[in-house]
Amino acid sequence: MISDAEIEQVYQFALELGKNAGKLLLEAAQKRMSGDVQLDEVEKLNSVDIVTKTDEEVEAFIRTSILEKYPDHKFVGEESYSKGSSKEYLIDDSPTWCIDPLDGTVNFAHLSPFYCVSIGFLVQSQPVIGIVCAPFLQQTFSARRDHGAWLNETVRLPLQRNPVPPLPPTAPKGCIFSCEWGKDRRDIPDGNLARKVESFVNMATELGGKGGKGGMVHGVRSLGSATLDLCYVAMGGFDIWWEGGCWEWDVCAGICLLQEAGGLVTTANPPEDVDHAPVPPAKLGGRLYLAIRAAGDGEGESGREAQERVVREVWMRVRKLDYERPGA
Amino acid sequence: MISDAEIEQVYQFALELGKNAGKLLLEAAQKRMSGDVQLDEVEKLNSVDIVTKTDEEVEAFIRTSILEKYPDHKFVGEESYSKGSSKEYLIDDSPTWCIDPLDGTVNFAHLSPFYCVSIGFLVQSQPVIGIVCAPFLQQTFSARRDHGAWLNETVRLPLQRNPVPPLPPTAPKGCIFSCEWGKDRRDIPDGNLARKVESFVNMATELGGKGGKGGMVHGVRSLGSATLDLCYVAMGGFDIWWEGGCWEWDVCAGICLLQEAGGLVTTANPPEDVDHAPVPPAKLGGRLYLAIRAAGDGEGESGREAQERVVREVWMRVRKLDYERPGA
Repeated sequence: MISDAEIEQVYQFALELGKNAGKLLLEAAQKRMSGDVQLDEVEKLNSVDIVTKTDEEVEAFIRTSILEKYPDHKFVGEESYSKGSSKEYLIDDSPTWCIDPLDGTVNFAHLSPFYCVSIGFLVQSQPVIGIVCAPFLQQTFSARRDHGAWLNETVRLPLQRNPVPPLPPTAPKGCIFSCEWGKDRRDIPDGNLARKVESFVNMATELGGKGGKGGMVHGVRSLGSATLDLCYVAMGGFDIWWEGGCWEWDVCAGICLLQEAGGLVTTANPPEDVDHAPVPPAKLGGRLYLAIRAAGDGEGESGREAQERVVREVWMRVRKLDYERPGA
Repeated sequence: MISDAEIEQVYQFALELGKNAGKLLLEAAQKRMSGDVQLDEVEKLNSVDIVTKTDEEVEAFIRTSILEKYPDHKFVGEESYSKGSSKEYLIDDSPTWCIDPLDGTVNFAHLSPFYCVSIGFLVQSQPVIGIVCAPFLQQTFSARRDHGAWLNETVRLPLQRNPVPPLPPTAPKGCIFSCEWGKDRRDIPDGNLARKVESFVNMATELGGKGGKGGMVHGVRSLGSATLDLCYVAMGGFDIWWEGGCWEWDVCAGICLLQEAGGLVTTANPPEDVDHAPVPPAKLGGRLYLAIRAAGDGEGESGREAQERVVREVWMRVRKLDYERPGA
């Protein structure tokens, strides 16, 4: 077992590591920016090469730093995993680091601000530390289990906490809904793209529309980074995030952050009995996530009850997604 | 006629004004955040009230500052306009300020980061100064005609400019596409929501899909702020922005920024002859906008030719939107 004092040490180490990895991402971005271009390097590489190179270099930096400091810990990284032959879920009860060196890869390739490094640490298969650094946005999110979630080490999350506002009684009306179009764009009847779009449209349409499924959310947002989506739900800036298709390294740190900020995360896929089925915790490797922000107690309803109410309101309006996961 | 030296003075004044108005927005946001809450005030107001109050106060601050310094200039502000009885287009050839004190109102209400103040200045109906300050993001965008567009006064836009990358030969494939769901959520056949969604889906679907309209864009983004969308196209982080329904104060500063960063802005609505119709400049008050980022010259194609090619590729895939505008 790892003691609380040890976890605190690991947390401080992970936070510095995240900030340093963020600096590496920003330096790689700045190489392509005004005044700081290394033409000979850029000319040899197209933007996909540059991104792959950055991804690999930052993962190697993180992996080396961790294994030097904690040689007994396990390491699951997006880049090393992608090169493996299987798609198995590799997280077990050992102290394990679960890393995405560059989330929001498409944004990074285009120098769009929404990219970050994501560093999660698990004990007994539970995320207990989460660090996310989005260097262009100058936002570093950090959380340690039972010690809260923070923006730039000074602002506790959620942002609005005196008191934490309740969820709207009419939710999803009044909520900001965050979702992603993802990479599966096949034009097949009832494929993931069609199901996602149907779900987005249900959430957005006026109340009473779409055969009663219209949710009239206050806004629909897509940033192109699952990790930042989760951080923004932890901030309370997004009320709901619904997504399928990402992987444990995309969400491990974010889930720790969200939970420490009082948020709830469950599965994106609605059960048979939407009204009464239990609301299960999300499976880290399940590739299906529905996150709800922290909620203050409302009239005749606890915050947790309100979160579960909103989960059911979302489940009512969304389609099941089909993302396979061997062995999870 | 206003001299170049006078415009430079107005620019410096507008830049300070934008940063100060941004501070006011952030202070209003911080009142609701941890550690800085004025409970008595917050308890009296719901979040819509708070937003309206901020909107009005910041517009009053901007208007007062301008009229004190430039009593002869005309002022068109979102808040004062909304209270007017007509929806007429009020911009003529006089030196005119066109202001949105708070763009991304829904984000602001939820403390989501994507809100900003937008300050445009027009001479002869042309935007010649654009200032956008997004205080939570610590991003201030500024442009003055013929003097470039800048992020935080130090980084010239677009971010990648040595050289400015060409647009992909396969565009919209390879492009980041930015769009907004907007406020018109009526569930009517062939209404604006249905047309927008059909357009988004065409842009996103794999090549060859959707009866040949599939555009396989690299990513779909929605921030909930037309002003920031334009700024991010000016940065080059978004390649394409397509939107209907916003107003001149939402886009005036952003159009100046985009043009100074080498971008193109035309109408969202496709003409009859998509392949050969001229690509007209956007009408400031036309409520229909399609923006393309700066483009370097490519093989056998100038940057401007590439931008027009991408405009036609978008027009091929999107539906006409129906937003009325009396007198524009």
